[in-house]
Amino acid sequence: MARVVVDVMPKPEILDPQGQAVANALPRLGFEGITAVRQGKHFELEVADDVDDATLAKIAETFLANPVIEDWTVRRVEA
Amino acid sequence: MARVVVDVMPKPEILDPQGQAVANALPRLGFEGITAVRQGKHFELEVADDVDDATLAKIAETFLANPVIEDWTVRRVEA
Repeated sequence: MARVVVDVMPKPEILDPQGQAVANALPRLGFEGITAVRQGKHFELEVADDVDDATLAKIAETFLANPVIEDWTVRRVEA
Repeated sequence: MARVVVDVMPKPEILDPQGQAVANALPRLGFEGITAVRQGKHFELEVADDVDDATLAKIAETFLANPVIEDWTVRRVEA
């Protein structure tokens, strides 16, 4: 059994109002020095050992991300 | 300027209907071997070099996560 992490982020050219709201709020709340915030999604999957990287990429691209507006990365982590 | 990643996940005892919906859908769609999916949030911050880890932890705990129902991790990544 392997642990797989998929991170999904809005593409750089896509506006990110949630992230911008956080970035704009922090100085008002007394936290200086945070110049940009982008918000995306983080998935943790428990995967059988015989699931290969191509299958994981297909799952990420098809079901976890919207490839029109989002980039995604897949990485295996130690269980 | 440093790049900081904050991952926010529902605590293990908290139900995660979004993750469960994905986990339930995958076998129907022909993808076997994914036994669990949890969905959380992924933040990428651009941070000035003088912002210390304690400040980042405070930001994560106070503004990015709800510590009643969510766990969070902060890590610095190469720019």
